[in-house]
Amino acid sequence: MSRKNKIYEGKAKVLFEGPEPGTIVQYFKDDATAFNAEKKGTLAGKGVVNNHISEHIFTALSGIGVPNHFIKRLSMREQLVKAVEIIPVEMIVRNVAAGSLSKRLGIEEGTELPNTLVEFCYKSDELGDPLIAEEHILTFGWADENEIDEMVHYSLRVNDFLSGMFAAIGIKLVDFKLEFGRLYDGDECMVVLADEISPDGCRLWDLATGEKLDKDRFRRDLGGEMEAYQEVARRLGILPNADVTEIADHIKKES
Amino acid sequence: MSRKNKIYEGKAKVLFEGPEPGTIVQYFKDDATAFNAEKKGTLAGKGVVNNHISEHIFTALSGIGVPNHFIKRLSMREQLVKAVEIIPVEMIVRNVAAGSLSKRLGIEEGTELPNTLVEFCYKSDELGDPLIAEEHILTFGWADENEIDEMVHYSLRVNDFLSGMFAAIGIKLVDFKLEFGRLYDGDECMVVLADEISPDGCRLWDLATGEKLDKDRFRRDLGGEMEAYQEVARRLGILPNADVTEIADHIKKES
Repeated sequence: MSRKNKIYEGKAKVLFEGPEPGTIVQYFKDDATAFNAEKKGTLAGKGVVNNHISEHIFTALSGIGVPNHFIKRLSMREQLVKAVEIIPVEMIVRNVAAGSLSKRLGIEEGTELPNTLVEFCYKSDELGDPLIAEEHILTFGWADENEIDEMVHYSLRVNDFLSGMFAAIGIKLVDFKLEFGRLYDGDECMVVLADEISPDGCRLWDLATGEKLDKDRFRRDLGGEMEAYQEVARRLGILPNADVTEIADHIKKES
Repeated sequence: MSRKNKIYEGKAKVLFEGPEPGTIVQYFKDDATAFNAEKKGTLAGKGVVNNHISEHIFTALSGIGVPNHFIKRLSMREQLVKAVEIIPVEMIVRNVAAGSLSKRLGIEEGTELPNTLVEFCYKSDELGDPLIAEEHILTFGWADENEIDEMVHYSLRVNDFLSGMFAAIGIKLVDFKLEFGRLYDGDECMVVLADEISPDGCRLWDLATGEKLDKDRFRRDLGGEMEAYQEVARRLGILPNADVTEIADHIKKES
């Protein structure tokens, strides 16, 4: 166990002090929440799958020069990351209308957007992560203009990369959420990708069947959440021989 | 009566075909609505007061070179305006946190904003005029980049002008809503200020007492709506000798 003092417990992860200064251990829970935690559940093995999928994606993004907080995976549920100051702005990147966008603007779910749409939300569980605009970010000093530009730039690069990666395995990347943080190094401060990228924060539709392979299965009571998450992992070449039972076994061994 | 065929009936106004092509008659009703028409009422004389206040403000804005649709007032409740194609984006200009901004982002009402904040909402009664960002406007083609720039530019000019005008009569301009339209002239198309400017779409606080002189009196069941609207008119030098009774008289004479 690399865990020390707990720093923060979120809806799907717990952050612990890392083994060295400037590091953090991200522990992936099986807890699932939706609609700002009005709906809660547990998906046995989700934390294990998301830890591995996020490792896979962050490693690949490092490979194309998208700076991020990932250092290495430590165990089935843990990964070591660089300590960053999270910017309280969630970036929502959309290629196809779905979810809150469809509801808010009356656009039929599944409508291909004329261009990739980057939305900003204010990261606040208490307020339900409300939609904001660049003007709010600047007015309230949540990020400066350069930081917004960097976040948008990297969001679009991540979108291009992941769209290709998922297309290659028969999956449409409909939309996803990113979080960024400030990484301090002496007087230097740079914006880096943080948090996680997993089916918890993406909409992933099977290209052939339209089947949802993401958290909408949980949100909308469709069932088969873990089969869907594992299908994504399997197509990415992650945990190819694992199934829900095996993952549940891992959990038992750990605890 | 200059009224011909009804073109559109909104929450507070009715639009009729004007006497000449390219003109419209705006008829100001006494109907009051709030919270996307969940709350409804009638404020006797409101239409008369708003027609006069809006005339006063649009005339003054023409004087400083803010292009707008206003031609002239026709009667106690009617004004003649140029026919424009309304851009489905409402501009919300905020100097002090209040209303939906306070609720959405958890900022205490009355907090002076570090800078004037211009918000965009998608004009849709059905969807409750949801907050949007510039990215949504461009993605869905509701306005182009030049039009957005013009709308923001004129919104800030109107804010400066009205802030001064209201400060001069002991009123703080907290926030207000503007609508713009496209005015076509042959192949030319220009963005002009449209709709109305009145206590229905502004937050106006008495500088000395903090008293609300706007539609929040109706939204929040504070009472004294018409006294407040008339107080604003009176300080602007409009209908100086009128009171609610006289206005009610005008209405009777008209009908």
